Parts: sequence; structure tokens; C-alpha cells
Amino acid sequence: MALIVKKFGGSSVGSTDKILAVAKRILSEKQPGDQIVMVVSAMGDTTDDLIALAKKIDKDPYRFQREMDMLLTTGEQVSIALLTMAFETLGQKAVSLTGPLAGMKTNAVHTKGKIVDIQPQRVLDELAKGNIVVVAGFQGADVKGDPVTLGRGGSDTSAVALAGALKADSCEIFTDVDGVYSADPRMVPDARRMKEITYDEMLEMARLGAGVMQPRSVEMGKYFNMPIHVRSTFTTKPGTMIREAYTMEEKDFVIRGVAHDEKVAKIAVLGVPNNPGIAHSIFSALAAANIDVDMIVQSIRNIEKNVTDMVFTLASDDLPQAKPIVDKVANELNAIAVLVEEDVAKVSIVGAGMLGNPGIAARMFGALSKAQINIDVISTSEISISCLIKSADLKKAANAIHEEFFPKK
Amino acid sequence: MALIVKKFGGSSVGSTDKILAVAKRILSEKQPGDQIVMVVSAMGDTTDDLIALAKKIDKDPYRFQREMDMLLTTGEQVSIALLTMAFETLGQKAVSLTGPLAGMKTNAVHTKGKIVDIQPQRVLDELAKGNIVVVAGFQGADVKGDPVTLGRGGSDTSAVALAGALKADSCEIFTDVDGVYSADPRMVPDARRMKEITYDEMLEMARLGAGVMQPRSVEMGKYFNMPIHVRSTFTTKPGTMIREAYTMEEKDFVIRGVAHDEKVAKIAVLGVPNNPGIAHSIFSALAAANIDVDMIVQSIRNIEKNVTDMVFTLASDDLPQAKPIVDKVANELNAIAVLVEEDVAKVSIVGAGMLGNPGIAARMFGALSKAQINIDVISTSEISISCLIKSADLKKAANAIHEEFFPKK
Repeated sequence: MALIVKKFGGSSVGSTDKILAVAKRILSEKQPGDQIVMVVSAMGDTTDDLIALAKKIDKDPYRFQREMDMLLTTGEQVSIALLTMAFETLGQKAVSLTGPLAGMKTNAVHTKGKIVDIQPQRVLDELAKGNIVVVAGFQGADVKGDPVTLGRGGSDTSAVALAGALKADSCEIFTDVDGVYSADPRMVPDARRMKEITYDEMLEMARLGAGVMQPRSVEMGKYFNMPIHVRSTFTTKPGTMIREAYTMEEKDFVIRGVAHDEKVAKIAVLGVPNNPGIAHSIFSALAAANIDVDMIVQSIRNIEKNVTDMVFTLASDDLPQAKPIVDKVANELNAIAVLVEEDVAKVSIVGAGMLGNPGIAARMFGALSKAQINIDVISTSEISISCLIKSADLKKAANAIHEEFFPKK
Repeated sequence: MALIVKKFGGSSVGSTDKILAVAKRILSEKQPGDQIVMVVSAMGDTTDDLIALAKKIDKDPYRFQREMDMLLTTGEQVSIALLTMAFETLGQKAVSLTGPLAGMKTNAVHTKGKIVDIQPQRVLDELAKGNIVVVAGFQGADVKGDPVTLGRGGSDTSAVALAGALKADSCEIFTDVDGVYSADPRMVPDARRMKEITYDEMLEMARLGAGVMQPRSVEMGKYFNMPIHVRSTFTTKPGTMIREAYTMEEKDFVIRGVAHDEKVAKIAVLGVPNNPGIAHSIFSALAAANIDVDMIVQSIRNIEKNVTDMVFTLASDDLPQAKPIVDKVANELNAIAVLVEEDVAKVSIVGAGMLGNPGIAARMFGALSKAQINIDVISTSEISISCLIKSADLKKAANAIHEEFFPKK
């Protein structure tokens, strides 16, 4: 007997046929005595359809954030009612609960709410009555009881948080991929599915460009120490466990994966006086505009004149907004020039195993060197190393690094 | 300054254009300082679309009543969000509240819930902040917080009950007709719009076949002594006030209206022994099958043999179920025969003014007699008189009676 939380996304419940298929699958896998909580998203295109409706009222309906939440939370409410009916028509007792009814308490930041508390007594009561409990993901209620949505990836966050609060035995996130890979298989054909990965590694992978799980849901898993099983909607094979630490068999790999990010731009501010406060004047101006800066390198241009170059990267989406800000500061600093490079990409390795394993960086750089790839900027964190390279070299780089750390058998 | 509750049905908010039009109309009529609560139904066909979706999961989804409520309450939630956005895009502060958020407490009878309490503090709070408050009709929450729908005509009931609980100055029900008429204008071309009608008269009109307002919403008005203004969505002219008593100017009319009902069938059980318990044996069998009986006449067939005929009417929809039940009882009672007539109709007059006005019945029968119409069965209540006649005579009868009590000027 186990308490299991299972999350299915919008494409898995995109039609009544798919909803019936999900219900059948769950019942076929259910062991006697299992207690099951389903967390589901809105059906397929429902959310987009609702947004389109709102746009007919106002060009920019998101300025009415509370009302967008009132509107969009209906999407999951439809899914949970239909999936519950599907269980019941198959002879399984079930009950649907909106996020608020399931005890998901959020702050009042509409359209980007955060879970502040979970009071899952109703869920436990319904499980005790023999029901499968079908909970609306992506939503909760603030202190007034008003519906609040959780923002991107919110259904995963709902599922992991609810599993944590229920002290569930496992939390399964069903997706259209069958787990977390050592690299993006579209980029690195030899990429292999990882059996396990730690919360911190998964967070670092997500930060560095891997898209399987939203960071907030992984943070939630870490907070509750709730293992997350990322697995396929289409097969019954096990996927990848995201958990605090590995079991023994996976200790072999010092790194967990190769991540990449193509949506990167580089800005170089050349020839600024090397005075205290230079970095501050550039980066505080960008921070004021809510622009995140990633890799930063300051290098001496001319030691006699005490002049330096400041190089950094940011998301290429932010470039149009960032460029005039940097130009203005550079002008005030009497910089020689501001150069922008957009044909750059970032390739990274991630792994808790690199702590106390000093040869890792050298192996990465060696792999790139052997592949004749120039490294432009390097940055490191406790559990990752990233290199900025030319976009054109990205595929070759990712495969070379992957081959170094995950050699073909 | 007045607190006004305004209810708009599904066809009035059937598209985003119509929703914008409703918002514009409300703002154009709003007096400075007016506090406005809108009660709205689901957009046009939304409810039917949701039911169709549920039927793809199960042929008879209404057997999952709780889940039907979970599903269908999303319809109004979409309307309130969009109408609120419409107010806001027009520059008017507004806020949407689901039935539960507006404090509508119901029993737990899913799909046919009844309002048991209203705690409208949130509505008052939002009004005090200068908001137009847009409330979802047709819905509330039971003691667990689960959504419950109110059944047919539920949005009218929501509006009147909320107006009562808020001690509103008026409650306006916007419909596709411009008020309550002295007869169905499709049947009686001379029918005139009544300026006023009492709750009791309106209830009696509804019971006897008039369809403008659902009886439960009128009962709610009577309970709260909340005048209900039935008026047109398409014009700004005043409609009909439903209230406890008339103002002076309307005292002229002793009757308020002529109602008719074509969906009537007559059953005659001929030649049953006139013993105590005869009526009980027939009508208790029908009651056990949940069949309502309307007009009842018992008449002596043969006084020497102490044999009687029992004649009654019922809704023609109930006839297929009722006939075998009556046949069985008639057989047990050794009745001579059971006759069914389906080509009958009921025409009625309604008016509190007939109390202490003994000539009214005679005038009704005289009008029918002058029009050469036979009366089959007569029944009376405190404020109504009904005659069963041949269906073919209905139009002539309704016009003759109407002309008697509402003469052309």
C-alpha cells in the first residue's frame, strides 16, 4: 500500500478520449490498497482559447491579473471533473478537488502565485473513503479565497508540493519524454537517460538550459525531500528519479549531464577606467531594468593606463532592452566601445561529483580543444562549468564533451 | 445613491461583443454613487457544450451529480471574469466573485441545490471599495465548500436572494421580454404589459403555465420582500414590478392575467364504488410514482348503486407513466372503464383582487359561454380560477376571457 501522486499535463488530457485512456492506465497499474492523487492541467488548448477570448475584451488582458486567474482556473476545473467522471464510469470511486479545495494556499500575486501553505486534510479524507482524488494543478487560493494561478510549470509544482505535504511515497510527473537525459537527444544522439539525478543537479541543468522540469517544482521537491519520478505518458517504463542523493549504482558518473543554451548574447564594454564601482554602475543599471546577467569576465586591457574590458552574457531576448542601457553607461564611463555578439552559445556540464574532483574542468577544456573549438568565456559554479563558444560550434562541442564523460560502451 | 442588483442571462452575455455591450449599457445608466451588483449566467451555449463534453465520457453524466456541478460552474466563472474585464477596459473598477466567494451557501443537493444562507460581506466590502461586483449566478457552495448548482432558473434565484440579503434597493431581471403580460402575447394579441403584479399572483401564473419567471426566484422575492423588476435586455423602458402589494394606480384590475397550459391530459375512472378510500387508492399510487395530479372532480354516476366517477388532470408528459398505474388500481376497484383525453387544455385567470369579489367566476364562465366554449372541469384557488376545455378552443377562450377582464380601450 502506497500513497502516490501522479501528475498529467495538458497534452495528456487533451481530449475526452485521452482522459479515458489516462484513467484506464491508472487503474491498470493501481495495486490493491494504493491511494492515488492525480494532479492535472487544463485540457490541451483550453488555456490558449480562454486567453484568446479575453483578448477580444481587451488587447492586453494580463493587466487584469486577478480576472485572468478567475478565467484561467476554469481550465483545470473542467479537466478534473471530466477525469473524475472517467474514473467513475470505469467503476472507480473518485472525487475532484480544485486547488483551493485541496488546500493549496498561495500568496496573492495573481498569475504568478507561490504556494505558501498546504492544508491537505480534505485530500486525506477523500482518500480514506476509497476515492482516487483528482486535483486541479497550477492553482490555489489566497487568504481571501480568490483563485490564484502559479505561473509557468505550475502544475508540476502543485504535484510535488502536494506530494510533500501528504508525505506521499512517490510523486510521478508524466511527460512526453521518458526522463532526464545526459544531454538534449536532439543535439547529442548518444545522450542517455539518467536513472537518477539530484535536486541540485536538476536545478543547475534547468538554469543552464535543460527544459524537462521547471526549477520551482524541483525546488519544492528539495524542500520536502520528495523524490520526483519523471516518466513517459506513453510507456510504463521507469524514467528518472530526482532525489537528494544517488543510490550506489549511479555513483560512477562524476557529471550528470551536458546542458546547452543557444539563446545567449555577449556584450563587451571595452576600455573603461579600472576604478572601484565600474561593475556596479553597469550591472545596477541592468538590474534596475530587471535584466539578468549571466557570465561576467573583467580583464585588464592596458595595465599602464589602468584600463579594463568588461564582458558579460545575457539572454538574447533581453538584448534589445539591454543595449541602450549599456550604451548610456559606457558613454558616461568614457568607454572605447560597446561590442555585441549574438552568434554565441553556452555549453555546460553539471554534476555534484565534480566537487573534490579537480580534473573535471581540464577534461572538458581538453575535449573542446581536441575538437578545435575556441572557448570565449568560462564560468563555474559549485556543481557546473560553462563555456561560451561560437553558436556554429555548439553541436560539435556538446557531442565532444558528452563523449568525454559518457563514452560509448 | 442606490444599491441595485442586475441579472443578465446567458443570451445577454453570449459573446464578447454582447458582454462589452452589457458593460457599456450598465455604465451609461449608472447614477453617481450607485452601487451595482451584476449577477450573470454562463455565456450562451457554454453549458450545453460542457454537457456534450461530459457525454463523451459517459452516456448519462448526470449520474455523477457532484462532478457535473464541478464542470458546469466553470461556465459562469468564465462569464464573470470576462464581464469584469469589460468593465475594467471601460475604466470602471470591478471585481468578479464566484457564487461561493459571494457567500451563497447551499445544501449539498448537487445539480438541484437550494440556497440555505447568504453571507454577503465580501460583496459589501468590494462595493465599498468602489467596485462593480460581478457575481456568478446559478451557483453556491455547500458546507464543505464544494460547488453546487441551483437547477433551472437558478440565476434568477441567485440574483433575488442576493438582493434580499444585501437589502438592495432594487433587483432587476433582464430578459428577452419586456415584462409580465396579462396573457401570452403569442396567444392573445391584445395582451398588455402589467406595471405591477404581486409575488402570489406571479407564483400562481407560473404554476398555471406562464413562463417568464421561475417560481423559486419569485418565492425568494416574497421571502425577502424584495421587489423584482422584470425588464428587457434590449430597451431601457421599465418592465413589470413583482412586489408584495400594488401601488394605487394598478388597483383597477381585479385580475392580473390569463394563463394557459396546453400540456395537460385528463383521466376519467368511471363507475367506481363510492367507498371511503377510493380517492386515496388512486392518488397515493400516483404519488408513489412521483406524479402530480392537478384538477380533481368526483361526481356521482349512479346514486342508487352508490357508484361514482373520478376525473383528474395531470401533465401530459406524465401520461405514459400514469396510465398503467391507474389501470391497475381501476381494475382492483372494479371500475367500469378508464378514459384518457389528451386534446384538453387549461385556461386560468389569476388575481388577488378576486378575493371578496364573488362575481369574477361568473364573468369568466359567461365569457366562455358567450364564445360557445364548453367547460369540462373547473378548479379554484384563493387567487385563481381554472377551466379545462378542448385544446381546439384554447385560443378563442383565452382571448374571450382576456377581453372580458382587459377590455380594449
